[in-house]
Amino acid sequence: MKTYRIALLPGDGIGRDVTDAAWAVLEKTAGSSGFSLEATRYPWSCDYYLENGSMMPADGIETLRSFDAILLGAVGWPIKVPDSVSLHGLLLPIRKAFVQYANIRPHKLLPGVQGPLRSEGFDILCIRENTEGEYSGAGGRVHQGTDSEVAVETSIFTRKGVERILRFGFEQARARRGKLASVTKSNAQKYSMAFWDEITRKLSAEYPDVEVTSYHIDAMTARMVMAPESLDVVVASNLFGDILTDLGAAIQGGLGFAASANINPDRSAPSMFEPVHGSAPDIAHLGIANPVAAIWSGAMMLEHLGEADAAGRVMAAIEATTARGIGAVPSKDKTEAITASVLSALD
Amino acid sequence: MKTYRIALLPGDGIGRDVTDAAWAVLEKTAGSSGFSLEATRYPWSCDYYLENGSMMPADGIETLRSFDAILLGAVGWPIKVPDSVSLHGLLLPIRKAFVQYANIRPHKLLPGVQGPLRSEGFDILCIRENTEGEYSGAGGRVHQGTDSEVAVETSIFTRKGVERILRFGFEQARARRGKLASVTKSNAQKYSMAFWDEITRKLSAEYPDVEVTSYHIDAMTARMVMAPESLDVVVASNLFGDILTDLGAAIQGGLGFAASANINPDRSAPSMFEPVHGSAPDIAHLGIANPVAAIWSGAMMLEHLGEADAAGRVMAAIEATTARGIGAVPSKDKTEAITASVLSALD
Ligand SMILES: CC(C)[C@H](C(=O)O)[C@@H](O)C(=O)O
Ligand SMILES: CC(C)[C@H](C(=O)O)[C@@H](O)C(=O)O
Repeated sequence: MKTYRIALLPGDGIGRDVTDAAWAVLEKTAGSSGFSLEATRYPWSCDYYLENGSMMPADGIETLRSFDAILLGAVGWPIKVPDSVSLHGLLLPIRKAFVQYANIRPHKLLPGVQGPLRSEGFDILCIRENTEGEYSGAGGRVHQGTDSEVAVETSIFTRKGVERILRFGFEQARARRGKLASVTKSNAQKYSMAFWDEITRKLSAEYPDVEVTSYHIDAMTARMVMAPESLDVVVASNLFGDILTDLGAAIQGGLGFAASANINPDRSAPSMFEPVHGSAPDIAHLGIANPVAAIWSGAMMLEHLGEADAAGRVMAAIEATTARGIGAVPSKDKTEAITASVLSALD
Repeated sequence: MKTYRIALLPGDGIGRDVTDAAWAVLEKTAGSSGFSLEATRYPWSCDYYLENGSMMPADGIETLRSFDAILLGAVGWPIKVPDSVSLHGLLLPIRKAFVQYANIRPHKLLPGVQGPLRSEGFDILCIRENTEGEYSGAGGRVHQGTDSEVAVETSIFTRKGVERILRFGFEQARARRGKLASVTKSNAQKYSMAFWDEITRKLSAEYPDVEVTSYHIDAMTARMVMAPESLDVVVASNLFGDILTDLGAAIQGGLGFAASANINPDRSAPSMFEPVHGSAPDIAHLGIANPVAAIWSGAMMLEHLGEADAAGRVMAAIEATTARGIGAVPSKDKTEAITASVLSALD
C-alpha cells in the first residue's frame, strides 16, 4: 500500500486545534482510499522558541526535506514572540528554502455559507508569488532614533522569479476558464511593476488561448468586491497576493473558509499546505476555531500527492457539512462538531 | 467680497466632463454664499503632452503655487501616453512639490446608493500618506533583457514623513469618533513597517484620548469588507492607502462616489481636490460619467478654504440628488442630469 510521509507542524494557537481536525479527516479518507498517511509531528512554535531560543532546530529545514508534504497550522503568538522573529524563523524560511514559489488560494462560497457581498456566484483562484518581491527582507534604517531617521525596504524581483510564477498562472488559467488577471501597480512603481508587466506581455504570446488582462492592485481590490464573478485566475506579487487573498477570504465568508497551498511546482522539495488564517491566540484551545480552512488545505495536499479522488471526497464531505448550515453548529464545540460532521459525511 | 483663486486642471478623459460639472455647482454655491470663485483653467493633459512634449510647462508648479486651491479632474490616457510618463509628469509632482502629504478620502454610502456589501452603516475616513513610502520612485534594473535581470524598487520612509501623517491621523480621529486604525505589514516588512509601528506607539502617548489599533494591510482589507462599521479613521502609507481607498470606493458604491483631497496641512502651498477615479478613456465625453465624486471633492475644497457652510450646502444638494435614486437617471445624459439635479437642489 502506498504510504505518504507527512510532516505535521501545528505551530501556535488555533493552528494546533485545526491541524488535529484536518488530520483526523485525512486519516479516515486515506483508510478508505487505498493509501496510507504517516505523520511525524514537530512542536516548532513560539513555545518551542521560548524553550530553545529558535523557532526550529538548526537542521529543521533538512529534517523536513525528506517528507512528501508538510501540513502546517499557523505560526505566531505576538505577545510571546514578535512576529518578525516567529514568522522569519519558521514559516517564511520554509516557503523560500523549498522553493514553494506558488501560493495558491481558492476563493468561492461553500454551499450554505453567506458572505458579506450581495454577489455570490464567484470562483477565483489567486496565485501569489511566495519567495521574493516585497517580502525579500532587504532593507535598513539610518540615523536611528533621531529626527533624520530614514527606513528603506527594497522589493527585489528577478526575471526567473517573475517568469515562473506568471507561467504557473497561465497554466492554471488554461486548465480553468482561460482568463488570467495579472496585478501590478506600474503607474506608480515603475521599476518593479513595469518589469512584471513586460514579462506578462512577453509570455502572453506563448499562451494565445489564455485571455490575459493587467490590473492595478487598487482597481483589483475594487473589482473583487464589485464584480468578483468576472475573475478566474488572478496572479500577483508576494505583497499584492497576500492582500488579495485576505480580501478573497473575506468575500468567501471569512478566514475560517480560506485554504492555501505553498507549491513547489518542480517537486524538487516538499510543498506545504496551510489555512490562510493565523494562530488567533485570543480563541486558542477554546474549541471554537473553524477547521474548514485547514481540512480544505488537507484536500489540496491530497490533490498534490496525486490522490485526486480522495481529495474530491474530502471536498464533498466539507460541502455536505457547510450546506447543512455551519452557523447552526453551537459555537462552544464548533471545531469538534464540524470535524465530526465532515468525518461522518465521509462514510 | 472675498474671492478665491482656483486653478482648474480638468486633465484627461472624463476628468474634463466631471470638472465642468463640479465647477458649475461650486460657482452657483459661491454666488449665494457671499464669496466668489475665480477659475483659471490649464489644459495640461496627455493631449498637451503630445503637442508640447511635457505634461505641463517647465514653470507649471510655480504657476500653480499662487492659487488658493487646485481642482483636478483626472490624469492619464495610456494609449496616448504611458501612465509612467503622464502621472509622473503632472499628478504626482504636484502632490510632492506642494507637500500635500495628507490624502483624505471619506467612505460612506450616500443616501439612496446601494453598495456591494450587505452592511450599510459605515463611515470611514481614510488618510493616505501622499509623498513618500512605496511610491518614492527609487529603484532600477540590472542585466536588462537577460535571464539574470533583477528589478528593485525601494520604499523610503522618513521619520518626518511618517510622524506628520500619523499626527494628522490622530488629530482627525480626535475630531471624529476617537478611533484610529494604523495599517502596516510589519510581520513581513521589518524595516519600513516596523518603523511606522514604532512611531505610532510613540505618538499614541500624546493622544491618550484616541484609541489606536495597528492592523496588517491584509487583515484590514478583510475588515473593510467584513466589518466596515467598526472603523473610524484609517491611516496608511502611500501604497496601502491607495489600495484601501479604492476598496473604500468600491464599498461605497463605486468610484463615481469617491471624493478626495490632497491636503497641505501647513498651508504653505495650495491643496488639491480630485475624485478618486481615473480618466476612464472608454467613456470619455459620452456624457455618462458620474460627477458626484468630483462635486463632493469640490465641497471638500470649500471646507478647506474655510467655507464650511457652503460645503455643507453642496453636500446636502448631493444627498438630495442621490436620495432620489441616482440609478433612475437615464444613463445617456447622466453627467448633465445629475449636475442639473444638484444645481436645482441648491435653490
Ligand atoms: C503571517 C504572514 C507573514 C503571512 C504572509 O504575509 O505571508 C500571512 O499573512 C499569509 O498570508 O500567509
Ligand atoms: C493614478 C495613480 C498614480 C494614483 C495613485 O496611485 O496615487 C491613483 O491611483 C490615486 O489613487 O490617486
